[in-house]
Order: sequence, then C-alpha cells, then structure tokens
Amino acid sequence: MQTTEQLQQILNNAIQNLNLPGYPKQLYDPISYIINLGGKRVRPLLVLMATELFGTDANESVHAAMAIEIFHNFTLVHDDIMDNAPLRRGQATVHEKWSTNVAILSGDVMMVEANKNLAKVNPVFLKDTLDTFNATAQGVCEGQQLDMEFESRDDVSIEEYINMIRLKTAVLLGGALKLGAIIAGASARDADLIEQFGENIGIAFQLHDDILDVYADPEKFGKQVGGDIIANKKTFLLLKALELAEGDAETALKTWISAKAFNAQDKVKGVRAVYDTLNIQQIAKEHMNHYRDKALALFAQINVSDERKADLLTLTNQLMDREY
Amino acid sequence: MQTTEQLQQILNNAIQNLNLPGYPKQLYDPISYIINLGGKRVRPLLVLMATELFGTDANESVHAAMAIEIFHNFTLVHDDIMDNAPLRRGQATVHEKWSTNVAILSGDVMMVEANKNLAKVNPVFLKDTLDTFNATAQGVCEGQQLDMEFESRDDVSIEEYINMIRLKTAVLLGGALKLGAIIAGASARDADLIEQFGENIGIAFQLHDDILDVYADPEKFGKQVGGDIIANKKTFLLLKALELAEGDAETALKTWISAKAFNAQDKVKGVRAVYDTLNIQQIAKEHMNHYRDKALALFAQINVSDERKADLLTLTNQLMDREY
Repeated sequence: MQTTEQLQQILNNAIQNLNLPGYPKQLYDPISYIINLGGKRVRPLLVLMATELFGTDANESVHAAMAIEIFHNFTLVHDDIMDNAPLRRGQATVHEKWSTNVAILSGDVMMVEANKNLAKVNPVFLKDTLDTFNATAQGVCEGQQLDMEFESRDDVSIEEYINMIRLKTAVLLGGALKLGAIIAGASARDADLIEQFGENIGIAFQLHDDILDVYADPEKFGKQVGGDIIANKKTFLLLKALELAEGDAETALKTWISAKAFNAQDKVKGVRAVYDTLNIQQIAKEHMNHYRDKALALFAQINVSDERKADLLTLTNQLMDREY
Repeated sequence: MQTTEQLQQILNNAIQNLNLPGYPKQLYDPISYIINLGGKRVRPLLVLMATELFGTDANESVHAAMAIEIFHNFTLVHDDIMDNAPLRRGQATVHEKWSTNVAILSGDVMMVEANKNLAKVNPVFLKDTLDTFNATAQGVCEGQQLDMEFESRDDVSIEEYINMIRLKTAVLLGGALKLGAIIAGASARDADLIEQFGENIGIAFQLHDDILDVYADPEKFGKQVGGDIIANKKTFLLLKALELAEGDAETALKTWISAKAFNAQDKVKGVRAVYDTLNIQQIAKEHMNHYRDKALALFAQINVSDERKADLLTLTNQLMDREY
C-alpha cells in the first residue's frame, strides 16, 4: 500500500503529463493556468486513496483522479464568472486574466478533457465510473444553482442549506472516493459506504469552514476573518442565528444585515456578539460533529482492515483539525 | 430498414421522454426551453440513419442521438452568450430570457445530461462511443474559439477559415454519423469513411450557407439577405474577395468594410457588386462542390449496398438543394 506522499507524487506527475493541446492557445492556456495555481489536490488524492484502500494499485485510478481534478477546476472557472470573483488562490481568475468568453469556453473544454480522462478507465469499470462521475457532476451544478438562488432569498432553511452544501461541496468528495472504490473492484456496498462517508465528511468540512470564517485565529487563517459576515453570506451560523434570535439580538442582527454603510470590523464584531449571545459557535460545532461522527460510523462499516484505513482517517483528521 | 420519417418519430418520442429533473427549476427549465425551440434535428437523425445504414435497429443508438442533440443545444446556449445574441430560432436566447449565469450553468448541466445519455450505450461500444464523442466535442469548442479569434484578425487565410468551419460545424456531423456506425458495429474503416463523409459534407453545407447569405432569393430565404456583409463577417466569400481584389474593386471593398455609418442595403449592393466583378459566387460554388464531391466519393467507398445508402443521400441532397 502506497503512502499518502507517494500518492501525491503520482498526482504531481500526472498533472505534469496532462499533455493538453497547444492550439488554439487561448482555449488551452487557461487550463494549464488554473490547474497550476495549485490547491491541495484533496479530491484526486481521495480517488487514489480509495483505490489503495481496497487493495488495488493507485496507478489504476490516476485517470479518474485527473478527471476529478480537471472537473473541479472547471467548476472553479465557471463559478468565478458567476460570482464575479477577481481572485482565485491569490491570482487573477481566468475571466479577469483573459475574458468571460474565454473562461466560458475554456471551462467547457475542461469538461471534455475530464471526460477524455475518464474514458481511459479500465473498460470493465467504465459504465459504473461514468454513472458515478455524471451523477456527481450533476449534483455539483445543482449545488451551485441553489447557492446562487439563496443569495436573493431570505427564507432559506437550515435543511435547504445543508442540502446545498452537500451538493455543491460534499458530493464531489463522495464521488471521488466512490470512483476510486469502483476502479478497485470494491463491492457495491463498500463503494456506497465510502461515498456516504465522503458526503458526510464533506458537509462537516463546510460547516467547519463556516465556523472558521468567524472564529479563526487571524494569525493562522489564510483569509480575512469575518468575510462571510461582511458579505451577509447565508452560512449555517447566520441562518441558525436568524432562526434563534429574538428581541435585542434579532434587532441587532437585522440592523447589521440591512446596513448599507458600515465599518467592516464593527459589523464583524457586532454580528459575532449576537452569535455569542445565541451560542451559535457551539451549535455549529455540534452539527459539524454530528456529520463527522456519522461519516466515521459509515467508514467503520467498510469491509477493510483498520490498518488499511489509517491513511484516509489521518487525512480526514488533518483536514478537520485546521485551527480556529 | 426504417424510413427517415420513422426515425424522426423515434427522435420526437425520445425528446418527449427526456425526463429531466425538475429541481432546481431555474437549472432545468432552460434545457426544456432550448430543446423545444425545435430545429431540424439533423444531427441526431444522422446518428440513427448511420446505425440503420449498417443494418442495426436505430433504437440501439437513440441515447447517442440524444447525447448529440443535447450537446448541440448546449453549444447554442453558450455560443449565444459569447456572441451576445438576443434571438435563437426567433425566440429569446436563454441568457436573455433568464440570465447569463443561468445560461452558463444550465449549459454546463446539459453537457452532463449529454454524457448521461451516452453512458446508456451498449457497453460493448461504450469506449469507442466516448472517444468519438469527446473528440467531436473538443473540436466544436476549438472551432468556436477560432471563430471568435477571427473576428478581431484581418489576416485570416482561406485555409484557416475552412479549418474553423470544419471544427465548428462539420466535425459534429461527422461525429454523429460515426457514433451511429460504431453502435451498429460497423468496421473501423466504414466508421472512418462515414465520419469523413460527414465532415466534408458539413464544410460544403457551410459554404452553401455563406453563398446563400449573399445570393439567396429574399422571398425564399428565412433571414435577411446580406446579413454577413452588413456585419463584415469573414465568410469564404469575403476572404476570397479580399484575396483577389485589386485596384478599384479593392478600394470599394475596403471602403465598405471600414465604413462606420452606411445604409445597409447600399452596403449589401456595393459589396455584392465587388463579388460579382471577381466572380466570387462561382468560385465559392466550385469550392462547395469540391467538398460535396469529396464527401460523395468517400460515401461511395462504404461497404454497404446502394439501396441502404439511398436515404442518407436523399437527406444530403435535400440539405444541399435549398434554393438560392
């Protein structure tokens, strides 16, 4: 069984050897650009780790891993257009660096590149691989649509929010793991279990992100603490606070949300004060732990030795243990 | 062997039964909208006709035909954003009716739907089907990129133009036919021949369109005659005229092209007069006939009886015989 570091090396090599066409340049340059902006490569790593978990060499699933990584980067390029985002990983987004048209079309051809990689999977597993990949891709699109719709709605329930982050973020983690399992010839039951593990851990990750945005240590956090608060982003914390707030807390929260002109730091402080009154951090952590525990319970049911499971658990813990 | 009318009925039924998800509504409504705007359904019909040509029931390739039709409609939705087009088949484009973001994301999920349909193909032919579909989709994206680049270039050669229309328009016809052949279990040679037939006939179709835009009978032509001239669109006719024009003809042509304010009918008349001096219509027809003849020569080599070939030839002739 290969170590996580060895799998990362396989990924790095595969990314170096993607071998995209060079012409037309404006179509393919943005693909190299976005993929080489980096990122932790968690999703393709999950494909490889799942394949190794079930006793097959990760080199068998490297094409599926590339499909997942290219697809993920495609969603970043198109989401950045839709969200009007100027920066991605500290660099200009594709639509800023080139143009919106280039970003649309390069994104489209990335989807084709993802599918080309997928078609290289062992034909024995091809049909299952495609069905899983397509269901995943469809879920991610649905999640992005719901995320956009929620921006202009003021009656989003916690249940709807959890479903949105499940689709937008978590199904891709679940799908990546399931692909790796399928290509290892895992049983349908184990493939479903690892997919469900991934989905639940993905929801926990996103709730963790929601908490970190408000309560992270500014010294250790990669971005501005309170960014979600400033933008009135409908995170778990805000939705829960809106559900629970009464009296002065409700007045304060709604005043901050509707304020047109404000000092950003004052707003972050003010909204966090409301959250503290309502014990929102604790409630969010309980929800996060609920999904993490559910994920781990599903993982425990997978018919593989604990020894083989260790690396995936370590990675999961590392991702969950980013500091506040 | 089923008649063309029977195959069209199979297509109509399949489109009625596409069974798209209903939620999120804003993601899926645009798909039904664009697909039900109609069109001649030539591309999916070619899939079915190729399958029947090689002696297999067209119902075997109906999922591939749907994949081609959904993919084609996806390219229309995204191209209309890029081209800033307000109308498609006389109705509002998706980005006009909803928004650019909806059009981007609905387009993306159409690509997924196309791939979902493709995955339903008989597993024996799945790998070949995917490889052909992905190569086709990639070509179409490359063609759209080149088309956009050519708008701002003034040194586009005839060779580059033919390659652009080959990618943007013709490879999808070739790909549709090849998919149908693959699913019928045709030999690799026959599958390649019918693909090449489709590509060459597609280039002939586009040259025919270029000629029609200038020389169609306004009574019979569906749209404004001279639209390409008014917009300075770099068609075969304009590029050839720029190549050949000297002296007064060159001056007249360049004056019309660079004119900022002009009477549209005068410009159409003026540019057409230059074309007539240079015998452009005749030259364009010779090029068109060259590709049509090449297509027919390839088609003749396909190892199937003339009787089975008759319907595809009839369709081809119908599409080429639209009146001037």
